[in-house]
Amino acid sequence: MTHPLLDLAPLTAAHFAAVERRLASLLATENDVVIMQGEALLPLEGCVRGGARPGSTALNVVTGPYGQTFGNWLRDCGATVVDLEVPFHTAVTAAQVERALAARPEIDFVSLVHAEAATGNTNPVAAIGEVVRAHGALFMLDAVASVAAEPLLPDAWGVDLCVIGAQKAMGGPAGVSAVSVSERAWERFAANPRAPRRSYLSLLDWKERWIDTGRRALPHAPAQLEMLALEACAERVEADGLETVMARHASAAAATRAGALALAGGLRPFVTEAADAAPVATTLRTPAGVDAGELVARALAADPALPLIAGGGAWAKEMIRVNHYGTDATPAAVLSSLRALGAALAETGAPVDQDAAERAVRDIWR
Amino acid sequence: MTHPLLDLAPLTAAHFAAVERRLASLLATENDVVIMQGEALLPLEGCVRGGARPGSTALNVVTGPYGQTFGNWLRDCGATVVDLEVPFHTAVTAAQVERALAARPEIDFVSLVHAEAATGNTNPVAAIGEVVRAHGALFMLDAVASVAAEPLLPDAWGVDLCVIGAQKAMGGPAGVSAVSVSERAWERFAANPRAPRRSYLSLLDWKERWIDTGRRALPHAPAQLEMLALEACAERVEADGLETVMARHASAAAATRAGALALAGGLRPFVTEAADAAPVATTLRTPAGVDAGELVARALAADPALPLIAGGGAWAKEMIRVNHYGTDATPAAVLSSLRALGAALAETGAPVDQDAAERAVRDIWR
Amino acid sequence: MTHPLLDLAPLTAAHFAAVERRLASLLATENDVVIMQGEALLPLEGCVRGGARPGSTALNVVTGPYGQTFGNWLRDCGATVVDLEVPFHTAVTAAQVERALAARPEIDFVSLVHAEAATGNTNPVAAIGEVVRAHGALFMLDAVASVAAEPLLPDAWGVDLCVIGAQKAMGGPAGVSAVSVSERAWERFAANPRAPRRSYLSLLDWKERWIDTGRRALPHAPAQLEMLALEACAERVEADGLETVMARHASAAAATRAGALALAGGLRPFVTEAADAAPVATTLRTPAGVDAGELVARALAADPALPLIAGGGAWAKEMIRVNHYGTDATPAAVLSSLRALGAALAETGAPVDQDAAERAVRDIWR
Amino acid sequence: MTHPLLDLAPLTAAHFAAVERRLASLLATENDVVIMQGEALLPLEGCVRGGARPGSTALNVVTGPYGQTFGNWLRDCGATVVDLEVPFHTAVTAAQVERALAARPEIDFVSLVHAEAATGNTNPVAAIGEVVRAHGALFMLDAVASVAAEPLLPDAWGVDLCVIGAQKAMGGPAGVSAVSVSERAWERFAANPRAPRRSYLSLLDWKERWIDTGRRALPHAPAQLEMLALEACAERVEADGLETVMARHASAAAATRAGALALAGGLRPFVTEAADAAPVATTLRTPAGVDAGELVARALAADPALPLIAGGGAWAKEMIRVNHYGTDATPAAVLSSLRALGAALAETGAPVDQDAAERAVRDIWR
Repeated sequence: MTHPLLDLAPLTAAHFAAVERRLASLLATENDVVIMQGEALLPLEGCVRGGARPGSTALNVVTGPYGQTFGNWLRDCGATVVDLEVPFHTAVTAAQVERALAARPEIDFVSLVHAEAATGNTNPVAAIGEVVRAHGALFMLDAVASVAAEPLLPDAWGVDLCVIGAQKAMGGPAGVSAVSVSERAWERFAANPRAPRRSYLSLLDWKERWIDTGRRALPHAPAQLEMLALEACAERVEADGLETVMARHASAAAATRAGALALAGGLRPFVTEAADAAPVATTLRTPAGVDAGELVARALAADPALPLIAGGGAWAKEMIRVNHYGTDATPAAVLSSLRALGAALAETGAPVDQDAAERAVRDIWR
Repeated sequence: MTHPLLDLAPLTAAHFAAVERRLASLLATENDVVIMQGEALLPLEGCVRGGARPGSTALNVVTGPYGQTFGNWLRDCGATVVDLEVPFHTAVTAAQVERALAARPEIDFVSLVHAEAATGNTNPVAAIGEVVRAHGALFMLDAVASVAAEPLLPDAWGVDLCVIGAQKAMGGPAGVSAVSVSERAWERFAANPRAPRRSYLSLLDWKERWIDTGRRALPHAPAQLEMLALEACAERVEADGLETVMARHASAAAATRAGALALAGGLRPFVTEAADAAPVATTLRTPAGVDAGELVARALAADPALPLIAGGGAWAKEMIRVNHYGTDATPAAVLSSLRALGAALAETGAPVDQDAAERAVRDIWR
Repeated sequence: MTHPLLDLAPLTAAHFAAVERRLASLLATENDVVIMQGEALLPLEGCVRGGARPGSTALNVVTGPYGQTFGNWLRDCGATVVDLEVPFHTAVTAAQVERALAARPEIDFVSLVHAEAATGNTNPVAAIGEVVRAHGALFMLDAVASVAAEPLLPDAWGVDLCVIGAQKAMGGPAGVSAVSVSERAWERFAANPRAPRRSYLSLLDWKERWIDTGRRALPHAPAQLEMLALEACAERVEADGLETVMARHASAAAATRAGALALAGGLRPFVTEAADAAPVATTLRTPAGVDAGELVARALAADPALPLIAGGGAWAKEMIRVNHYGTDATPAAVLSSLRALGAALAETGAPVDQDAAERAVRDIWR
Repeated sequence: MTHPLLDLAPLTAAHFAAVERRLASLLATENDVVIMQGEALLPLEGCVRGGARPGSTALNVVTGPYGQTFGNWLRDCGATVVDLEVPFHTAVTAAQVERALAARPEIDFVSLVHAEAATGNTNPVAAIGEVVRAHGALFMLDAVASVAAEPLLPDAWGVDLCVIGAQKAMGGPAGVSAVSVSERAWERFAANPRAPRRSYLSLLDWKERWIDTGRRALPHAPAQLEMLALEACAERVEADGLETVMARHASAAAATRAGALALAGGLRPFVTEAADAAPVATTLRTPAGVDAGELVARALAADPALPLIAGGGAWAKEMIRVNHYGTDATPAAVLSSLRALGAALAETGAPVDQDAAERAVRDIWR
């Protein structure tokens, strides 16, 4: 019995390499791009374990939960970790990073999440990259939630390790992901005796077995269907135009913020400054006395597919997150989310102005 | 370059026959099932052109636009056509059909649309089948909009030609479609010198070249991907349970009707009696002075993907149709449609009670 | 349960139109291209029934079974049919067509198959087009087996109706197909009261409902998956280069011919002149006393997937057809076919030189 | 633009769990089955790093290259490694394992590859399992190349960690893979402070975040398309019947072995005893003086898609591997491989009897 997902001719090395080149072009990078065969956590973990070691000192910028994960990995590698935590409702500033670096000249690794979908903020990577480069540390950026949603220029910004996934603004698969690796990063990995080697976590394996041998044979069988989906979504972003795709996400973020304020039910943007708000997700604070989990549950009762989630961890009771990426980066999706939140708020007795929210959304999109 | 939709091993005759059997089981029919390689209009046209000829008298029940199409085909075949037109806001009754048959004993062909998505009504096929069988005419039923949405039992109801497509309640492809053919229908076709033969329209070709030769070789290359999708959606209906799928559609229809009334903006169900309302689409009349096309355009401005359409032809100015089939047969989709209509009505100055509509929808679903 | 072939967002009119443009570009045509939602038999039948009528006189060139099918359709339309039959082992010449036209000045329709896969020949369309144009008749060409396998330039050659499918050299789906329609052809259809209208066979429906209304809404739901596959295979042909794809098919034909001769088991090319041989399939005559059906059955015993078929109809006992299109237009596939034939011949006691056949194939490909 | 591989509704936890159950049924296991989101190397590495630690003593049976890989991982974990190497042209015996265990009572981990595609041998796991269980060590089995090709009963055989992939006999995707984990194995992992935790390599993460929480939310976004393909290939194995699929592979192995011997060109089975030969791949020794790489290159010149590979590492000059799994576990595919090898051998001047090889293959299959 024939099936569209089975018995495909194997993905050739040339085809795999062509997808790599497409991603390199999307990132405007001259560095090597490695497409690892797992979710973005895989290259992120590979970068941390390759770049950090006992004796390393890492500045780990924490603007959300992924930053916390990176800190755990760094400590697990034996590195001394300086956590630069900023309140999750803001972004970190280049000046803060600069001060942290100046205080600890031995810092040789900096990890940063570009945009944190979970907390809804985004960080000024260009400016931060400048101070990191001046300091000389290796700079790792988690750009999963920013790629195709806002400008991302790893080479121009001095990012040594830029990790992306396709599952957010690119509207693609989550099962494979990529990282651009600077020459400096390769050298750091090579010099680290504890960097993963002969391991599913190993970036060096890809360098030695794939890149350095002329991209003739893959080190192991790829996730072919995810690769084909990755190629298709990259093609679609190119066809739509990267600028257009980014503009859609910016509008979705602005409309969600404006609409939530206009709704007047007591929701407030969690991220104080609009300039610090991520283009893929907007986080909102619930009014006093309104439990976020309950509010979201009520909103999802009507439509479980709406891109709404209650905050995680410490924010579980007071934060709501509205995702607006990929096919949800549209006025209609934003409106549906706001209406459902509005209706759920109205049930709590809050005064709600659904029409004002709708007008606010439409004003942004015009 | 490998691609999931290209270079599949050809669909075997055995696989094709297995899909036929699956559809026969869905229809609980012992008759032959022919899967024609085109939209449902193809088997419908093939049935009319095979069953009607100069000298035939056909009773064509018109409860919507498809009935009108069948009348045109019947006349094109040289048949005398008795159009039994009922107002589109009702269903035809078995008694009406019985009277029409009694008035013209020579009627030898009856065509009926089970559910008309365009007008939102559904007809009592079981009772009608009884009187048609008593009369002795060949009975053709267009069940595209009813299959998997409401009970459909062609053999038990005496339907000779039951045409189905997968694109509505089955959530499947539109590019292939099927018809169950009774022995009587095959005989009628065979006796009709003007029945399509050696033609893309021909059902007899399928009988002679496919069925009568033991289903060993297809008469022409099939639309393989559509066949695979048809199989997948039939499997899914089986896995979910046909009863469950039908119940979802019934609830969606009831909720849309109740919600539209509760909205209080002046929308009224087009189909007067709830019992006559189709489970795949609900048609609504706009308030006096409100143009349906403009109202729908306003509602779609926010979300062009909403399953809303203005009525066609004579109803363009005063009918709105809410589709609620397949993935739209859910409380969430119904709510989104009603909310968008409510907001559009509010813009015209009509008083609208969105909350009441929402409660009405939820009450139905509980 | 989510499935890659179900619940796709509907194919937009713009997307459909983009596929049309891609095919127009492949055909280098300025004429309208209509993508009909069925196998290529559908547009072929639509063209014949649109172009012919009682009072028409058609020159039907018969170089294989499809020509015979067209003759039947033409007669069914009430046209006077002049069948120009040439032995299937040759091609028709422009001079033959010219003489036939001169003998019957009233001929107003000419039907021709470019390449006949079943008989393995191909016809000189450019030269024939010139004489048809000089005569003034409408010229319909079945190019299903030639598109992407050999040059095809409908506009330059004066072809009014050029029908293509993707299932041969394009390596694509069979479930949708296309036809380029000249202005003259549209006029002929429009003037024909018996041309199919409001019918699945109707090209005029597509003109009136799709083209003339600005390609804003499709006349009926399309075979979406087949359309996506058609687009994908057209993209692949473009990426590989149309010239390259054609060259692969030319080499496959030459290699099959040379290899069969070198095999020395008594197989002879059915088509006498290499210049008349089709690039998608090579037909071979079996040695005296060797039944073609039995030989093919023996060859397929080892590999039922080999692209070998015994001839149809009158040729069932003495003709073997080797397909070599799409993924079979490679040295390896040609070699596998020849080896299997060689082994089957050897079993009949014929002297066979497999090595010579293999050398012959490789010589061509170098 | 809609695309079959993009914008799928996310795979639900329930759907993911259903695929797990299907694999558990295929393995006839009552243990937990974890589907890891990467190639089979990922769960294999996870098992080794979870099961071994400083202080562990591992018996690593080496019957091919994967055994060598496991040894490296084990040493990397700080375990004392006892490599039980057997010549790659044989299988290990239960008696050998028993002696090795008796010599080192402290052995607490045993790693074994069931079938090694690279060397073409397969090991008697049932008997080995018995002695390992008697000894009390944790038993890890790499069954990627045996699942669906030969009997595999982890629970009955006392296998604690049984790793499978779908890319060989199951004819499925390589991008996700699975492991059944016994209660004992979970306990070992939990007690190992160096077992991967909060890592892409971690099986414990899956236990804590997925299994122990009721399989309600996946720990990270899955490789959805690979999961759907895995489900489809498991369904196909069930539909064909696991016994039937295994029988096809057994026949393919027997036919390749017999055919290679009958070919008489000097090829000899690398694995001495037929009982030790793997059902997914047959390894052959080239005649003296014939370079394996050159022979394979010559054979592939005609058909680069043939499942032939020269041996790796030390065997590069004298070993040829014929794969015969999935769609290649057919008489036709086996014949094509042997013929191509035969032709390539003939070119070296070796006497070759292609007909005898063909007869031998067919005799097996009857």
